[in-house]
Amino acid sequence: MSTDPLVVFTPSGKRGRFPVGTPVLTAARQLGVDLDSVCGGRGICSKCQITPSYGEFSKHGVTVAPDALSEWNSVEQRYQDKRGLKEGRRLGCQATVQRDVVIDVPAESQVHRQVVRKAASARVIEMDPATRLYFVEVYEPDMHEPTGDFERLARALKREWDIPKITADLTLMSKLQPVLRKGKWQVTVALNKAHDDDVHRVVEIWPGLHEGGLYGLAIDLGSTTVAAHLTDLDTGAVIASSGIMNPQIRFGEDLMSRVSYAMMNPGGDREMTRAVREAINTLAEEIAKEAEISPELIVETVFVCNPVMHHLLLGIDPVELGQAPFALATSESVTLGARELDLDIINPRARIYVLPCIAGHVGADAAAVALSEQPGKSDDLVLIIDVGTNAEILLGDKEGVLACSSPTGPAFEGAQISSGQRAAPGAIEAIRIDPETKEPRFRVIGSDLWSDEEGFDEAIGASGITGICGSGIIEAVAELRMAGLMDENGLLGSAEATGTPRMVPEGRTHSYLVHDSTDEGGPRITVTQGDIRAIQLAKSALYAGARLLMDERGVDKVDRVVLAGAFGAHISNLHAMVLGMIPDAHLSKVTSAGNAAGTGARIALCNIAARAEIEQMVRRIHKVETAIEPKFQEHFVAANAIPHKTDRFPELALVTTLPSPNFNAGSGGGSGEDGGRRRRRRG
Amino acid sequence: MSTDPLVVFTPSGKRGRFPVGTPVLTAARQLGVDLDSVCGGRGICSKCQITPSYGEFSKHGVTVAPDALSEWNSVEQRYQDKRGLKEGRRLGCQATVQRDVVIDVPAESQVHRQVVRKAASARVIEMDPATRLYFVEVYEPDMHEPTGDFERLARALKREWDIPKITADLTLMSKLQPVLRKGKWQVTVALNKAHDDDVHRVVEIWPGLHEGGLYGLAIDLGSTTVAAHLTDLDTGAVIASSGIMNPQIRFGEDLMSRVSYAMMNPGGDREMTRAVREAINTLAEEIAKEAEISPELIVETVFVCNPVMHHLLLGIDPVELGQAPFALATSESVTLGARELDLDIINPRARIYVLPCIAGHVGADAAAVALSEQPGKSDDLVLIIDVGTNAEILLGDKEGVLACSSPTGPAFEGAQISSGQRAAPGAIEAIRIDPETKEPRFRVIGSDLWSDEEGFDEAIGASGITGICGSGIIEAVAELRMAGLMDENGLLGSAEATGTPRMVPEGRTHSYLVHDSTDEGGPRITVTQGDIRAIQLAKSALYAGARLLMDERGVDKVDRVVLAGAFGAHISNLHAMVLGMIPDAHLSKVTSAGNAAGTGARIALCNIAARAEIEQMVRRIHKVETAIEPKFQEHFVAANAIPHKTDRFPELALVTTLPSPNFNAGSGGGSGEDGGRRRRRRG
Repeated sequence: MSTDPLVVFTPSGKRGRFPVGTPVLTAARQLGVDLDSVCGGRGICSKCQITPSYGEFSKHGVTVAPDALSEWNSVEQRYQDKRGLKEGRRLGCQATVQRDVVIDVPAESQVHRQVVRKAASARVIEMDPATRLYFVEVYEPDMHEPTGDFERLARALKREWDIPKITADLTLMSKLQPVLRKGKWQVTVALNKAHDDDVHRVVEIWPGLHEGGLYGLAIDLGSTTVAAHLTDLDTGAVIASSGIMNPQIRFGEDLMSRVSYAMMNPGGDREMTRAVREAINTLAEEIAKEAEISPELIVETVFVCNPVMHHLLLGIDPVELGQAPFALATSESVTLGARELDLDIINPRARIYVLPCIAGHVGADAAAVALSEQPGKSDDLVLIIDVGTNAEILLGDKEGVLACSSPTGPAFEGAQISSGQRAAPGAIEAIRIDPETKEPRFRVIGSDLWSDEEGFDEAIGASGITGICGSGIIEAVAELRMAGLMDENGLLGSAEATGTPRMVPEGRTHSYLVHDSTDEGGPRITVTQGDIRAIQLAKSALYAGARLLMDERGVDKVDRVVLAGAFGAHISNLHAMVLGMIPDAHLSKVTSAGNAAGTGARIALCNIAARAEIEQMVRRIHKVETAIEPKFQEHFVAANAIPHKTDRFPELALVTTLPSPNFNAGSGGGSGEDGGRRRRRRG
Repeated sequence: MSTDPLVVFTPSGKRGRFPVGTPVLTAARQLGVDLDSVCGGRGICSKCQITPSYGEFSKHGVTVAPDALSEWNSVEQRYQDKRGLKEGRRLGCQATVQRDVVIDVPAESQVHRQVVRKAASARVIEMDPATRLYFVEVYEPDMHEPTGDFERLARALKREWDIPKITADLTLMSKLQPVLRKGKWQVTVALNKAHDDDVHRVVEIWPGLHEGGLYGLAIDLGSTTVAAHLTDLDTGAVIASSGIMNPQIRFGEDLMSRVSYAMMNPGGDREMTRAVREAINTLAEEIAKEAEISPELIVETVFVCNPVMHHLLLGIDPVELGQAPFALATSESVTLGARELDLDIINPRARIYVLPCIAGHVGADAAAVALSEQPGKSDDLVLIIDVGTNAEILLGDKEGVLACSSPTGPAFEGAQISSGQRAAPGAIEAIRIDPETKEPRFRVIGSDLWSDEEGFDEAIGASGITGICGSGIIEAVAELRMAGLMDENGLLGSAEATGTPRMVPEGRTHSYLVHDSTDEGGPRITVTQGDIRAIQLAKSALYAGARLLMDERGVDKVDRVVLAGAFGAHISNLHAMVLGMIPDAHLSKVTSAGNAAGTGARIALCNIAARAEIEQMVRRIHKVETAIEPKFQEHFVAANAIPHKTDRFPELALVTTLPSPNFNAGSGGGSGEDGGRRRRRRG
């Protein structure tokens, strides 16, 4: 009695003996080896490509002879002639086992392949999308067994793919019969299976083998911009990224003003809903055009957004989010069809998944950050801050995660700052003040040169120097503090007190002159006492929110800080800490996660289990409501000082020593008093 | 130790002992007694009314004292003052058990009350609709537990009603918050639970207790007319019935011509879909107006229809139904939302249920007939014929059910008949020919008088005598046969051969003059040899279909015959049998089921289990395809004779003796030959 040949798969290491003549795909399936196939082993989709390895494998105890696999058969040969196979590759469904063999499954033949993210943290996404392609052969109708075409499609999917139950809407039903006949009863279907439902939904059907791919959109729907990543649902690759302004801006710059618009104008919520849905259609159209794919191939879309955007996207009046107790209409994840959102550019049967909201002010975007950054799996205590007009803050480790939001207002984005502007060419994004000369140098968006470097004027070219953006103002305030031009309370000193003519009087206060191009008809860019106050309010709110979570957790210190959001990526660690935006930590422990919300959306798009995971995670996150927490006020006032009135910053002290001037001459006053008025503001 | 009081419920006879103070509703629930409640025992909905019985009950071994139940409490008193309770009634949720008591649950307080149908067969429908009302109290939002309003509604329904999971679409979500607040966190929701799904869908929400009722439409969507019954989903009562012409008639009179229209005109199917959906909207509007209810209270609609109407309703091109193998796009039941069918008069979240089709020519209407007439539960072998342009035929008993359709054509509806017309005032609907004098007398629609009765002319009034409708032509042909004016082969005799001047020559054949009002400018109504041929074709097809099922079953005789359809109700048993439309049976065993398809729709509307039942039933029904069965042709030819060439009609012979003339003078010929051309026709 001979022994069946041994088959060893790499990289999984799975092994087993199979009778001579067993197709490699069959062996892989029986062993649970992750080997893809859309056509079900018919040798036409080429998803099951494998590479046999030959020779001695002492590790596996196998010697692989040149004839370990069957010779090329006609199907494989035809595929090779028409499409070509990479050197050394075979079709797993055609090549059969003849003798002991070691078979490598290349990454692109794995269903659950891993996609390495480009972000600094380089986490991987395991591909396991909700929508997949299945090629099937449907029995022809028979007058003696008069079942419907759809029921025979269902049976074929059961027979060939073990799909228990399918469903389809009328738009699919109406194209079913011609497609089945055009494909001569061989069709490819895209089936979507929600993570919380057993039913497979037929999203699309093509005659024969569909080779045009399947795509999904991960959309980060922000108050200001709507950003989309077009993702290949097979490979996980981002094919194109595109952004568009949120047209709701015409109804109000920040969230609160949009809620007000809805409150004051009957039907105003519906206007805003219409506007944002139209924008998403435009974005989908543009991104599909850019990627040169048919928008009908976009079969899934995942949304992350803050609660107000969430409600306006879904067509729910956000009025309740504008007043205590900030009740969400629905907090759990929402799964629906594209047409329910009037999305008519992408596939009409595309499925939409909106991540759950954490609370009335901590939205699906914060949930996406949690999914991306996984504070609940962290060994050390991590503070994650998604900086925006409404900062969302997470604090946690394996023991548990806390969340809150804090009304920072738009100062960090350059709004309410005298020379402030959006981050755009011409905006000062970085600034240094010499502690000796008190002279500034800066960089503007559009050039890598500092203003004291040669060629700066030419480099900035047409844009000129137009204002200061968010990261610029944070640096400016921190630099003023480090240069001794501003005291701990945020008071700017006079020219006399500081010894520099750049301190110019402005009423009863002083401003610092950064740049004056009024002679050339340009702007005069200063940092005023009012600007300092605006930044103080914003950073106090941010710090107070973080501090509240630390109180709740019972700690005085966090192990690391992650700044999320596009803005977070541009903030200098050192300056943020000098300003006291974030609690003290070793500078190396303050990192940026980039657009973590967008990454979370991509994860939920590519991996269905991640949806269940974030839903579970959100339920376990403990929410802290800053608006009703008496200690928030206390923390807010204490955080007004720069970096802080009472909290010590020992890690910061190791890096820099802050001067201790006091410019309080009885005028100008402290700045903590007006905090109470401002702190309930939302936006 | 005292023993707890004994509570006996009638009519169920359920009994149990409960502690003093137990509300009657609680006792009923614990015993599984069917006692309704929408408000959950708050004393506001009055659904749980019961009647205590007092005195000696030897049957139950109980003596009920006057103080067996608690005295009226303030809630009950307030209800009594505001709304009034019937004499002797109490609110089951307020009255508590004090001593042994016998409690009667009146029919209107039962959830699963039985509704007696008006139809002759007097079957009952047990109420168990898919959509029910639930009154709940939702917890207010809390900043410390920031769940969404919808999630709190779900929890309230779980807590108070043990509803495991709810879902809602965005249109419901968008009205949720204002309704909850308007109702001060007390709301009534209408929940729909499909029979094949565990999820409860929120169809509607009202502030406070909703007392406006819930309604459903049972729609019989025919090729010619669309009939709807507006049904109270609480009581099962039909509140209003209304019909409307199917506007698709402008695209083709019969089904086959509509299929042709779709084949010949690109987009023709969509035109017809649009037309029928608009008609349904109109019908819904009219019926709601007639019943004086808001159409938004219509939360369910059940459709029964033939396969072509089924596809056109669903927006599926029926082209495949026009050619072998007559493949349905989908054969199983379809459940969907009103908006998917563009139904925008009824509640936008109303659920639609379309019964399954049996085969490509045996539709959901035949399934509805099966549900209503239950051939599979019959002890004797029953033949059920739904007469129409395409007759649907069921044959079966407890051993099994067979089904087929037969292309009878429109002759039975008066089409293709020289003096034929639709059943409308002025149409001759009954006719008798004196076997001695050969003179006719008749009745026209609009009057109960026969034409030889006094006052006939006045009674028919303005309509006059305009033509012959379907039942009239059947009777006319049968009467001609019984009067010896037509022979077994369907040949009409000449005036000479028959001895009556009413037989008038018409080319090489003869006609029978029924009525001549040409002198008064009216029509001349005859039955021509061509009319006889048309009826012969139709009845042969019907008989051949029935005979085919009898062959399949291996019988020569059925125990009873049920004629379904509005038309069936107007056919005289005797005449139908003389004509040989139906197989021989004792006349008392030939009954009419009225609009059995409509009844089936009502059953599926009122009882959710009936949906599962008919789906199961349809799967078990054995389909026979007449178009491919060689014996159909044989049966068709043999059935051409009147009543039949070969089959004996012993039961008919007991009632009447048919004369045996033979008018075949070598011209006019037999009529079997052209059957082959016609019999594949569908419509």
